Amino acid sequence: MTRPRISAASLKRYMPILDWGSRYDRDAATSDLVAAVIVTIMLIPQSLAYALLAGLPAEMGLYASILPLVAYAIFGTSRALAVGPVAVVSLMTAAAVGNLALQGTAEYAMAAITLAFLSGLILLAMGAFRLGFLATFLSHPVIAGFITASGIIIATSQLKHILGVEAHGHNLLELVVSLLRHLPEVSLWTLVIGVATTAFLFWVRKGLKPRLLALGLKPRLADILAKAGPVGAVAVTTLVTWGFGLQDRGVAIVGDVPKGLPPLTLPSFDLDIWVSLMGSAVLISIIGFVESVSVAQTLAAKKRQRIVPDQELIGLGASNVAAAVSGGYPVTGGFARSVVNFDAGAETPAAGAFTAVGIALAALFLTPLLFFLPKATLAATIIVAVLSLVDFSILKRTWGYSRADFAAVAATILLTLGLGVEIGVSAGVVLSIFLHLYKSSRPHVAEVGLVPGTEHFRNINRHKVLTHPEMVSLRIDESLYFANARFLEDYVYDRVVADKALKHVVLQCTAVNEIDTSALESLEAINHRLGEMGIKLHLSEVKGPVMDRLRRSHFLDELTGQVFLSQYGAMRALGPVDGTPGARKAG
Amino acid sequence: MTRPRISAASLKRYMPILDWGSRYDRDAATSDLVAAVIVTIMLIPQSLAYALLAGLPAEMGLYASILPLVAYAIFGTSRALAVGPVAVVSLMTAAAVGNLALQGTAEYAMAAITLAFLSGLILLAMGAFRLGFLATFLSHPVIAGFITASGIIIATSQLKHILGVEAHGHNLLELVVSLLRHLPEVSLWTLVIGVATTAFLFWVRKGLKPRLLALGLKPRLADILAKAGPVGAVAVTTLVTWGFGLQDRGVAIVGDVPKGLPPLTLPSFDLDIWVSLMGSAVLISIIGFVESVSVAQTLAAKKRQRIVPDQELIGLGASNVAAAVSGGYPVTGGFARSVVNFDAGAETPAAGAFTAVGIALAALFLTPLLFFLPKATLAATIIVAVLSLVDFSILKRTWGYSRADFAAVAATILLTLGLGVEIGVSAGVVLSIFLHLYKSSRPHVAEVGLVPGTEHFRNINRHKVLTHPEMVSLRIDESLYFANARFLEDYVYDRVVADKALKHVVLQCTAVNEIDTSALESLEAINHRLGEMGIKLHLSEVKGPVMDRLRRSHFLDELTGQVFLSQYGAMRALGPVDGTPGARKAG
Repeated sequence: MTRPRISAASLKRYMPILDWGSRYDRDAATSDLVAAVIVTIMLIPQSLAYALLAGLPAEMGLYASILPLVAYAIFGTSRALAVGPVAVVSLMTAAAVGNLALQGTAEYAMAAITLAFLSGLILLAMGAFRLGFLATFLSHPVIAGFITASGIIIATSQLKHILGVEAHGHNLLELVVSLLRHLPEVSLWTLVIGVATTAFLFWVRKGLKPRLLALGLKPRLADILAKAGPVGAVAVTTLVTWGFGLQDRGVAIVGDVPKGLPPLTLPSFDLDIWVSLMGSAVLISIIGFVESVSVAQTLAAKKRQRIVPDQELIGLGASNVAAAVSGGYPVTGGFARSVVNFDAGAETPAAGAFTAVGIALAALFLTPLLFFLPKATLAATIIVAVLSLVDFSILKRTWGYSRADFAAVAATILLTLGLGVEIGVSAGVVLSIFLHLYKSSRPHVAEVGLVPGTEHFRNINRHKVLTHPEMVSLRIDESLYFANARFLEDYVYDRVVADKALKHVVLQCTAVNEIDTSALESLEAINHRLGEMGIKLHLSEVKGPVMDRLRRSHFLDELTGQVFLSQYGAMRALGPVDGTPGARKAG
Repeated sequence: MTRPRISAASLKRYMPILDWGSRYDRDAATSDLVAAVIVTIMLIPQSLAYALLAGLPAEMGLYASILPLVAYAIFGTSRALAVGPVAVVSLMTAAAVGNLALQGTAEYAMAAITLAFLSGLILLAMGAFRLGFLATFLSHPVIAGFITASGIIIATSQLKHILGVEAHGHNLLELVVSLLRHLPEVSLWTLVIGVATTAFLFWVRKGLKPRLLALGLKPRLADILAKAGPVGAVAVTTLVTWGFGLQDRGVAIVGDVPKGLPPLTLPSFDLDIWVSLMGSAVLISIIGFVESVSVAQTLAAKKRQRIVPDQELIGLGASNVAAAVSGGYPVTGGFARSVVNFDAGAETPAAGAFTAVGIALAALFLTPLLFFLPKATLAATIIVAVLSLVDFSILKRTWGYSRADFAAVAATILLTLGLGVEIGVSAGVVLSIFLHLYKSSRPHVAEVGLVPGTEHFRNINRHKVLTHPEMVSLRIDESLYFANARFLEDYVYDRVVADKALKHVVLQCTAVNEIDTSALESLEAINHRLGEMGIKLHLSEVKGPVMDRLRRSHFLDELTGQVFLSQYGAMRALGPVDGTPGARKAG
């Protein structure tokens, strides 16, 4: 017996590495290697810093930047996406895991590993069932508001490391209050290092590259040097701390980071823990996916390439499962890092695998050097990185364009700042869905008449048009479904009840893309009640798919009037008296 | 100083009694009185039975049928709606209150009173803020499925009274298992009374009226006698139980029902209780409102009257607050009862107030007579009433018409039966919203061409149409918003990427009723990327309100192409070469 063989095409679809890997050559390898070196330099301090943000030991940041990158290189479709720990997901990890255990305990780390595992499973399941569209329920303004608010929370949460005090809280108010309460305990040397590093990094970001260019460096080299700023800050502040023994003068240091490759870990399989983490895992998965896919799509478009969103889910899912089995925590594609990877010339996902090798070498050999690294330096790295995420312009843009979207953004920002990331983003999603339904629950309905000399019908309130006293034509600018079925009934009755001369109501269905069962029942009720009043109901310009469906119901048998192909046809048939175009044509 | 006076019109709007009351005359009073007598006869056994269903003492059913009716008569707008305890809301009360306290305890009754109070506040708030549209999010199929499943649960839950055994459970499986386990304890005399009453009531419903008509009775009288069936059953079974001392042979009786008018009660103001009941109160309010309004609208339409849904919220809210302060539990407009009220000739809400007087008289004088009333009789009344609610035809209808609606109904029925009323109806609502969004997240997009000899554009796959190699026209059959913004981007890129000859993409926006911020950003991205490919993006037939909004953004300044008033105009302008209508016209 022969078992069905898996086709090469389907294997390639689920493991894109088999596709690009077969054409991989020396040129591509060189480009990928250069990009990997630059990304590695950028990723070392970032991975340590984001682990700190997530409340985890520094080495977990490194571990999350090794095996997950290899997994993405095998399963991912983006040629530029750089996967690893990112700021927003680290913050969400801290919020989720903080409900279960205290920072610094083994349970806390185990919960973070389990969160990565759950998130991986969710992403894999979404990929397998092609549920990538779920991410579309996060509207652009909600994401923008959420990222901005998260950036503010993250930056504020890092101030404690700059000040050298203890402070806790998952929302802005708690954080600020906690910071103010501990302000008297501020550590002077920590503050000096923190402020100096922050200032230096801001200068590197804004001022270094132009200066290097002015000195005659090539743009590419200037770029790389500017990106190495955080590594420079790490090196200098570590040396200073060691040289002056600042760790004894109140400067908190990273301390002992275990040397070696990531350990093999297993997530917890405790059902209670799974249940408590599930909601957070869903949010982290969807937000991580949305961030990642939008970066990947932007970069792919620049080279006229395409990514496959459902396969991206598999790539990110595999990365998170890889994080869970190798002592990491939830990862996704990072924005800044991917742009650097792209700009540095990465041609294939192999660049990510090379980066993983770089980080692995760091984990093997560099960790002893990190002993005296001040936490304030890492905090400064985070602050400078996340402040670029903060962008309130979305408020202004939506205010001018759509008040509903403005409401969704404002609620997302306020609730994220006030009640934390999980409530904030959930409320944003629910509110934008609600507002969308609300808008379509009161659709625009225009009473229309014929524009003289044409076959076009327009709003009687906006144009000089021909109408007929025995007939009213209503154009409904929305699909008919449960949320507006009742509105339509009310609208028609209100229009009809006082108009004794009326004999025909025509619903022009140009913009009706769907009629669901609730709306069908409403149409049946309208038809029935108008019939009792001696008024006939007609439809015009019903779209093909809608008509196909109506034919499967009894509605067309019971309809007192007709279905006209065009509104013009309806007017010709129903209004054949003087003063109407039907009459004119007939005459 | 004079304070602003409340205008008579606004008072009349919030207290419709001031409107109809001022024109009230002897004829109307006579009609209302007759209707009230008939409804009272029907309501006495119903109110006792539904209290039993809610797990409350029988008198609370009577109390819920006195002051609430008076409150509705003052604030309600329907001239036929009969308010009071109803089956589905009683079941939901049992489910909600059962989580907090044990049946038969004072806490249980207090929780039911508090539930009525919360529900009243919610309805009043919804009325004050004109949130009646929230009810439209319950689609017709979901309501139909929910009512059917509730009917089955209610009927099953009453079997224990027919069998004379103990059984508990809030879903079908629990109930059936519990019943089967207690089956050996069945009480023979209870079973005899229960089965005989059920059979009698079914016969009354189906067979009595034709027989009375055959005997020469007038239809009106035959009708009233048929409606009095349950009262007859109550009287006969009470007499039989008393006469044969069946209460000593295992027949459970109603027992001591306090005599007198409703007591003055106050709801609990314990915050914990409010929090635990709030979700249930929201569900009960919305479901009660939906049931009530659909009955009221149906009956009003028969007399060419209108009800005011937002004022109905105030009427029902006042009724529930009234229930809470007079020892009742959540009430709403009952279907069968309102139809009887209407058929019996009720002309104004005063009929409800007269009914309240009838029930008050019963509470004052009849309660001692109810001592020997078997619970099995009440259970039979409930079973016969709710089985008329059970109607699976919605499954067949939606299967034929819309699979999405079918999925929502099937899920509502299965989850209500399997996991209880609250989860069932919530899941139905969420699923129907989700399916609606899902459908509109993948809109129908047609590539269109010109129908020769006309100015009409149709799908190139369905019709023989003229197209032009340098231009593609896409008609999007949906509003553009966050859930389909990404879809549109993907669709356009996929269409464009392989077609090297392409120079123009025209989006025909006939069916686009809205473009939200997310979709605007997608359009900007499409415009930008097509521009990079040397392709111009154009829009055609953009609706007025959508165009107004686009003018407030920067999109039109950045648009590489034009906005055409008509698709025909776009083709004339962009395709002026041989073989195209533009060329012909130009030639």
